[in-house]
Amino acid sequence: MLAQAALPLGLRCVFLEDAPFAPARLLGKVYSTEQFEDFARAADVYTLEFENTPVCSARLLAQTSALYPPPDALAVAQDRLKEKALFNQLDIPTVPYQQVSNQADLRTACEALGVPLVLKTSHGGYDGKGQFVVQTLADIDAAWAELGDAVNDAPLIAEGFIHFEREVSIIAARDQHGNVAYYPLVENHHHQGMLAKTTAPAPDSDALTTDAQAAIKKLLEHLDYVGVLALELFVTQDGLLANEIAPRVHNSGHWSIEGAITSQFENHIRAVAGLPLGDTRIVQPSVMLNIIGEYPDLAAATAVAGAHVHLYDKEERDERKIGHITVMPTDRSELAARVAEVVACLPNTMGL
Amino acid sequence: MLAQAALPLGLRCVFLEDAPFAPARLLGKVYSTEQFEDFARAADVYTLEFENTPVCSARLLAQTSALYPPPDALAVAQDRLKEKALFNQLDIPTVPYQQVSNQADLRTACEALGVPLVLKTSHGGYDGKGQFVVQTLADIDAAWAELGDAVNDAPLIAEGFIHFEREVSIIAARDQHGNVAYYPLVENHHHQGMLAKTTAPAPDSDALTTDAQAAIKKLLEHLDYVGVLALELFVTQDGLLANEIAPRVHNSGHWSIEGAITSQFENHIRAVAGLPLGDTRIVQPSVMLNIIGEYPDLAAATAVAGAHVHLYDKEERDERKIGHITVMPTDRSELAARVAEVVACLPNTMGL
Repeated sequence: MLAQAALPLGLRCVFLEDAPFAPARLLGKVYSTEQFEDFARAADVYTLEFENTPVCSARLLAQTSALYPPPDALAVAQDRLKEKALFNQLDIPTVPYQQVSNQADLRTACEALGVPLVLKTSHGGYDGKGQFVVQTLADIDAAWAELGDAVNDAPLIAEGFIHFEREVSIIAARDQHGNVAYYPLVENHHHQGMLAKTTAPAPDSDALTTDAQAAIKKLLEHLDYVGVLALELFVTQDGLLANEIAPRVHNSGHWSIEGAITSQFENHIRAVAGLPLGDTRIVQPSVMLNIIGEYPDLAAATAVAGAHVHLYDKEERDERKIGHITVMPTDRSELAARVAEVVACLPNTMGL
Repeated sequence: MLAQAALPLGLRCVFLEDAPFAPARLLGKVYSTEQFEDFARAADVYTLEFENTPVCSARLLAQTSALYPPPDALAVAQDRLKEKALFNQLDIPTVPYQQVSNQADLRTACEALGVPLVLKTSHGGYDGKGQFVVQTLADIDAAWAELGDAVNDAPLIAEGFIHFEREVSIIAARDQHGNVAYYPLVENHHHQGMLAKTTAPAPDSDALTTDAQAAIKKLLEHLDYVGVLALELFVTQDGLLANEIAPRVHNSGHWSIEGAITSQFENHIRAVAGLPLGDTRIVQPSVMLNIIGEYPDLAAATAVAGAHVHLYDKEERDERKIGHITVMPTDRSELAARVAEVVACLPNTMGL
């Protein structure tokens, strides 16, 4: 989708990807990691769209080429302990947490933070994987049996279990001159740890927007970030708590292809290419639904008024994001009804 | 732009094109005309985006493959005499005209239709080329010297000179079940025979829309058309006069990429692929400006709020359409000011 946004601007993309049928192949030359040196000479500027890109690879590329966002942002996003520490350093509220290096630490954390708590690997983990909910102290052994091996890689993190009302995210872009543009706060519904639905803008979010913008601005400036950054947040009775950042275009911003004047993809490309940022305001309220595992019937999905279908040319596989549909009817009062029609088309309705 | 619209729907394109650096190469395999037989076996369904495609090639392809729109529509669009005859057969008003096969016919036409009149080749001609305005009877020799040779190919056409208030066009799509969706009437400004600017929707056009929709519906149904058809019209004191059809996505519909819920490109692809048509209503009023001959500074153009830049990866050349910019600010009251900013960026302002 980044390359699709670059194309009309007259900008051409090359890609680094080892998968033989990478969707990106449709839009430019794909280099394998074995061809890294050629890849590193092929473009004027580089960016990332995968937060698990090895930080060492990013630093290597940054030595010889312009790379946005900076590898430091990637390093923070890949380490939940660094990420939480940065939030705290910048006075961005988070859930209480503790570092866990052994089973005794976990017991200490349970006593300090209370149970239930969530034990997570600090590296890796995606879409709810690498997590264990410790409901009572009796779960400590089971938690350790499942995740304890990961301490050989890096310490774990224990996070206090919070009762949040809903999950929201904010996406912002920062250009090479330090100008920042914010997309509206959006509301996200997850199912089994995966994003199922994003509502843009988030209902009743005016009072939260100031805090969310202030938080992401601090992160962008601290990291001297260029490009699109996403910040996931919990809405609690006491206000917003930061959950995590994604140093890339984000699934909760896919609605912006049709729903915003300038999409997150185009604004990321603009920032990375040294162009000014485009208008991030919404065109009309929209809802994005992920296509997980299996494609819907295309004729049925395109028959829904105001449905914009995006298929990713990926093979169908359980729990894999293989597309999304953004619903933006002309008459906003029809939004809920049109969303229901699209959900009815989806083989995996993700609990909606 | 058709292939760009096909991509998110999971549909892949191949192309027939002899130019070595065809922009289409960025989005799929390009076959040369020498590889026509391979091309004719490569896809499930075919379409046209160039109205000067030889009708014989289209008929050849249609013998073995599904091809939309039908070659008959192409044949009509390539022959001004056939086109005018079809308009008249369907009771769609046009300027008065006469067939001209020799210089004596031209004199007869001048007497019958009055001067000034416009002498045109009936085949070929594009962006105002292949035309001669006969101001007085004394111009007949000069007109014949310029265009007379063309009668060896096909008769010429003499068209009465009309005083029109403005030029508009309507674009409609028809699917494989005969359903028709209309885009709003748009207003077109030409400069030296080339489209400079399209305003969507056309101001003060409610009263004209019924007639325009009725005219294009008759054409679509008569031709058993599938895909997007454009009809150019003159607005006169006596109502609409049909000028010409284009059996393809049309330059006066490029605004629809951002300005309509479903673009003309996606709806053409949907129709050709046997999918239902998408909503053709506008998102917000917009203005499309063509980039002719020379590209603007990309940073300057993208700096205009609500400007959507589309560059075609074509070499710069005088009088060549090499891109367009659609202006759609969030606040519609800013439209005129933002259009002026974009015009100020254009190396060729096309008289705007």
